[in-house]
This record gives sequence, structure tokens and C-alpha cells, in this order.
Amino acid sequence: MKILVLNSGSSSIKYKLFDIYNSSFDVLAEGMVDRLGQEGSVLKYDRRVEDNIISEKLEREIKDHRDGLKQISDLLIDPKIGVLESSEDLNAIGHRIVHGGEKFSGQMVIDQEVKNQIKSLFDLAPLHNPPNYTGIEVCEEVFPGIPQVGVFDTAFHQTIPEVAYRYAIPESWYTDHHIRAYGFHGTSHRYVTEKAREFLGNANSKKIITLHLGNGASMAAIKDGQCVDTSMGFSPLAGLIMGTRSGDLDPSVPIYMINNHNLSAGEVDKILNKESGLYGIGGDSDMRDLEQRMKKGDKSASLAINMYTYRIKQYIGNFTAIMNGLDTLVFTAGVGENSDFIRKEICRNLDYFGIELDKNLNSNRSEMVRKINSENSKINILIVPTNEELAIAQRTYDVLER
Amino acid sequence: MKILVLNSGSSSIKYKLFDIYNSSFDVLAEGMVDRLGQEGSVLKYDRRVEDNIISEKLEREIKDHRDGLKQISDLLIDPKIGVLESSEDLNAIGHRIVHGGEKFSGQMVIDQEVKNQIKSLFDLAPLHNPPNYTGIEVCEEVFPGIPQVGVFDTAFHQTIPEVAYRYAIPESWYTDHHIRAYGFHGTSHRYVTEKAREFLGNANSKKIITLHLGNGASMAAIKDGQCVDTSMGFSPLAGLIMGTRSGDLDPSVPIYMINNHNLSAGEVDKILNKESGLYGIGGDSDMRDLEQRMKKGDKSASLAINMYTYRIKQYIGNFTAIMNGLDTLVFTAGVGENSDFIRKEICRNLDYFGIELDKNLNSNRSEMVRKINSENSKINILIVPTNEELAIAQRTYDVLER
Repeated sequence: MKILVLNSGSSSIKYKLFDIYNSSFDVLAEGMVDRLGQEGSVLKYDRRVEDNIISEKLEREIKDHRDGLKQISDLLIDPKIGVLESSEDLNAIGHRIVHGGEKFSGQMVIDQEVKNQIKSLFDLAPLHNPPNYTGIEVCEEVFPGIPQVGVFDTAFHQTIPEVAYRYAIPESWYTDHHIRAYGFHGTSHRYVTEKAREFLGNANSKKIITLHLGNGASMAAIKDGQCVDTSMGFSPLAGLIMGTRSGDLDPSVPIYMINNHNLSAGEVDKILNKESGLYGIGGDSDMRDLEQRMKKGDKSASLAINMYTYRIKQYIGNFTAIMNGLDTLVFTAGVGENSDFIRKEICRNLDYFGIELDKNLNSNRSEMVRKINSENSKINILIVPTNEELAIAQRTYDVLER
Repeated sequence: MKILVLNSGSSSIKYKLFDIYNSSFDVLAEGMVDRLGQEGSVLKYDRRVEDNIISEKLEREIKDHRDGLKQISDLLIDPKIGVLESSEDLNAIGHRIVHGGEKFSGQMVIDQEVKNQIKSLFDLAPLHNPPNYTGIEVCEEVFPGIPQVGVFDTAFHQTIPEVAYRYAIPESWYTDHHIRAYGFHGTSHRYVTEKAREFLGNANSKKIITLHLGNGASMAAIKDGQCVDTSMGFSPLAGLIMGTRSGDLDPSVPIYMINNHNLSAGEVDKILNKESGLYGIGGDSDMRDLEQRMKKGDKSASLAINMYTYRIKQYIGNFTAIMNGLDTLVFTAGVGENSDFIRKEICRNLDYFGIELDKNLNSNRSEMVRKINSENSKINILIVPTNEELAIAQRTYDVLER
């Protein structure tokens, strides 16, 4: 079975084509279309030929999502460099959809009703759901008749209880305006949770905290495999300090800046999303740059990193309290998988919680699921590389097999 | 030595007159002026006559702060019902000042410089610092030549490290606009911390969490007697769910309501401060009413209380993590001192942290500092009645004795 996974953003489309055989998911081709409708638009295409990866980077005019998907399709079935006989060779398309609202707690075969629901959430996810939706509509044209499945970033968080997802705001803001915590990165939190539980056994992973630390970052509390709380909220702005996002902030601050410093709500929104976080404090949004500067004694880089890890420690405590326990920490995503320094800073001075890293295991590099806690650590500490595209392909496969 | 403690609000003045003798602080008289400048303004005056308290409630026109303080002064020196020979009998006046900014980490004798500083913070505390300031100026007229001392609600929190008081927002918002966490209720957190440490001994109270649960509510993390973090932030809106205040909230929410639902920043501010919190969820802001309704099976009251205690548990975890330990919980203020039900709900399912209440000790009522944990509890759980007026009198006394 062949499944194409798509992540349609506002100016890019990422794709990955999987071949599923005997429950093994192999990547046949992957790549992205970038700078859609802009000058210098480009189509990247990596294909597997036996054990090698052959990369192509094609600079060409790509007008819009339709044009981009058409060109991806043409490449995939190209007689010389394609990996499919024809577009009918494709069995399904799995779409990453950011916001599923309160309706979707799992993946869904996309029909008119699902499309309407995704559309009704444009208001809540104005940057993400509209291009996700466009991706679906364009696929109906370019790959007619091929089943499409939506996999929602919010779905895994739908088991969070009301006490945790509601805010202490007027009830009508929830009932009429849908203001509650939704949580995001759910596909990744779910994927690494399943991998961790396979690795440790369910009895040793009843109370997990997953740390998805990428450019966006969030944590989730997982009890018996079900998400019970997460750090992102109504929007992906809340929670941890991120590359350019503030994370948690006294809600008076945006109001104060609008009222006293002549900024519009839109301007404050942009600043909190694009000019805050690590970048706002430390002047760099990339953790690798900050680490280098910190090691050279740079104070603002040091402050940014210390605030970043402090916030994460706070959430480790927070989630341990609400689960009344903890047995496993799972690090994933760019920073979580690759920065032994940040993992060390997060775990430092948490021995009261029984958290203790093994220095050597922590600094070894690998692509495997692995344990990095010391023998004395009461808490399992794992690195589980995330793979959202694979997770979407698996979900898509699941729903078609059912 | 006689010290008058004043808390000047926008439409009220609370006062308490202490007689200090051999380090004992006795209350000679106390009361308040309410509905300043409005119809039905009233002056309450309780005085001690030997072991009795005699209360008077005088309905009279009270035009403004000046008029109110003049009438308080007249009562205190009244030949028949007064408790002072003359206003010169007064040795000092201690003022509660809400916002001390970054300048004041302790009480200050009020001079022109201190007054200028309080004034420069009007912007950050528009509801509180202006009437506090008026109280000072009027005292200069009504009690000429008597030393005045400012005791700041923010002062105790000035030991919080930068990593905890900074937000991940553009640096200029901090340097130019003073946006950081300040924390409030500091006089109370300090007072109950000192009482708890006297009661337990310093060696048994190195890592304390204080829970000031009144109509406003906040928590603080206290390491070796110094505040290291607190739940309120830039404003008293952040942190715990309160009577009518939302507490923590995704900062996108106010922005979203302004952008999408036609509210001004000022309207959102008012709703989050006055129509949210317990009231927003449960329809009542008073915990006693909610408890009663919850016990009768009311669902929204139940949700409000469960969200309230959930948030508190989250902060217990959060502060335990950042202190890397915990030995003592201290409950204080209206709800904290009086609701055994709420204390029970907060401590429930926190045995992983070694928190265990004694059911009987928890339900006994008393005005004393007391321990309410079980013998097996690893954590001391105390009730320490707060007394902000006494604390202000003590601070005022301290600064004059130095």
C-alpha cells in the first residue's frame, strides 16, 4: 500500500511517500515545495533508489498549492525519476491538520462533513487550517478518487479532562466562542508515548511526561497512555518558551501593551509569536547558536537558556503533581533529541523527583529509542526520535484498514 | 509607641491603631471609612475599652480621602470616645502600598524621593498606587510632622531571581516598559513565612510553599526564608484562579477576544478581573457559596472548585520542582484559614509528594498557628492566620527603631 503524507502550510507543502508492506513503512520519496507563489520558488525531491537517496532541487515557477501539488504528482509518476507507475498507484493521502476543535479525537476519512468542520475552525487557527484545507481541495482535483485522511494535531489531547482544558473565564467565552485549551503537537506526543511504552513496557510507563522541544515546544502529561494535560492551550503560543514565542505570560501584559504603548492587538500578537521567546531574550531563536554564545560567557544567551529550562522544570513539577507521580520523561524533537546540554540543564537539580541523568548515555548520539538515566534514577529518561510523517502514515493506514 | 496603619483604597480607607509596649502589639482601635464621596458613606470605629470592643457605625457625609482621614483623626482624639490624648500622641503611620516596582525591597520612611517613586508607578498599578499616594499626602496635612513609612506588597518578592521574574518577551518591553513579574501579597507571604519558621524551627522549614487564599489568591516559594518565585506576575491577575480573576490564561485569549469579538482592551481587562475566576465558571465568587452548592450536587460550582484546586496543585508541583524539594505547606487568608474542605481537596492525591492531611486536625477551628498534617506526612502542613495590618505595624516599628 502506498500512502502520501502532506503538510500544507501557507507558503510550503511538505510531502513524504510511504510504501507499506508487512507492517513496515518505507519511504519511497520525500521533499517539499517552498516559497509558493513567490520569487525563487523551489521543489525539493529526494527519492530512494535501492539503498541510495538521490536528491533533486528544482528551481521553477510554482504559482500556488494546486500548481505545487500537480508538480509533485508529476514528479512522483515521472517515467525517468518517478517512484509510482501512475497516480492511481496511490492508495491514500494523509493530511496533517492543525486544528480539529472539539469534534475530532482521532483521524478521520475526509468527507464533506469533515471538510466543513475544518473550515469552521479557520477562526481558531487562521494561519494553519486554511492552507491545510486548500491542500485537501487541491488533492481532490490532482488525485481524484483517492481516499484522504485528516490527522489532527489536537486529537491526542481530547482526553484531557474538563478541569484542565477549561479556563476561568466567563462560561459564554467557552460555550459561544470555543475558548478552551486544545493543545497541539498531539501527533508527536502520541507517537513518542507509544514508542516509549513499547520500549519500557506499560507497567513501567504509567505516568509519562513527554517533552517535544523543537522550534515550537510543548509538554504533555500522559497517564496510562492517555493525555491528561498539555502546556499549549487555546493557541500554540502558551506554555513553554519557544524559538520566537513567549509561552506563558500574565494575560495583563498584552492588554497593558495595547492600552499604554499604542500597539494594536494584531501587533502584540505578532510580537509575542515572532519576536519573543528565546529570540526576545537572547537575540537568537536557534538553540545551537544560544548554546555556543552561552559557552563563551554571553549573558543574554545564558538568561534565555536558563529561562527556557526553568519553565520546563516548572511543567515537570506541575504535571507530576496533577498525575500524583511520575515514572518516565521522554525527550523528543530537534532540541530534545540533539542537545545533551539542554537535557542536562533540564534534569539538573531535580533529584528530589528522582530524576538523574547518566552523563555518558546522555552525550552518546544515536537515532534509536534509548534510555539516558543513571542506574540510580527513579525515573526513566528516554530519548525517542519523533516522526510525525510516519505517525500520520500509520494513522492513515489504520483508518483504511478498519 | 503608637502606630496607625492605613490602607487607602479608591473608595475606602481601612485603619488600625497599635500600641506597642515591650514588643507586644495591641490594637487600640480599628475600622474603616467606606463609600468615600458617595451616597451612604460610613465610618466604622471599633475601640478597645479594657477587655471589651465597643463598635460604632457612623453614617455621615465623607467627601474624600482628606475628609475621611480628618474624621478618623477626630475620632481617635475625641475626649469621650477617643483612644489618643492628641494627634501628636501618634509616633508613626504605616501605609500599605501595593506597588514598589524594582526599587523597594523593604519598608521605607516616606520622603519626597519615595513619593516620586510611588507616583512613577501609577502606570503599573493604576487602581492602587494613586489612592495609596493620596493617603500619604493627606496624612502630611492631617498628622503634620509624624513619620510615615511605606510597606510594599511587592517588596518580599524582590529576592526572586531574574530567571523567574523575566518574561520571554522582547528585552525592550522589560528595560523600557518595566514588564516583568513583581508579585503581590508580599506582606502576607512574609508574615506567615516568619510565623511558620518560628513554629517549626528554621531547619524544618527550608523549603516552604505559602498559599494565600483569599478573594485574591497567590502562592509563593520560599527557600531559606527568601521568596524565590510567586504565582502573581506583572499584575495581580496572573496565577491562581480567584474570586473574579481568571489567573493564568493563554496570552492569545485576550488578543483573540479583542480581534474577533469586538471588545476593547479595557473591556477584556475588566472581564478578566471582575467577571472571571470562580464567578466566571461557577456563578459565585465566594467560596462558601460554591461549597454549599457543590455539596448539593451543582455541576458548575463543582467545576469551579475543581479548577481552583487543580491550579493550586499545579503550583505546588511547579514550586517543588524549582526548589528541588519541599518541607512545608502554609495555608493562610480567608479560604486558606477557614475552609477545611478546600484544604482537603488541595492535599488530596498529592501523597507522591509526601503530603498527607490529618482529617481531625484539619477540621478543628482555631485562631492559632497550627499543624494539620498526619503523623506519616513527610510535609509539614500548617495553618497560619495572616495579619497584614500587624505586619505593616511591625515593619513600621522596625524601620523607626533602626
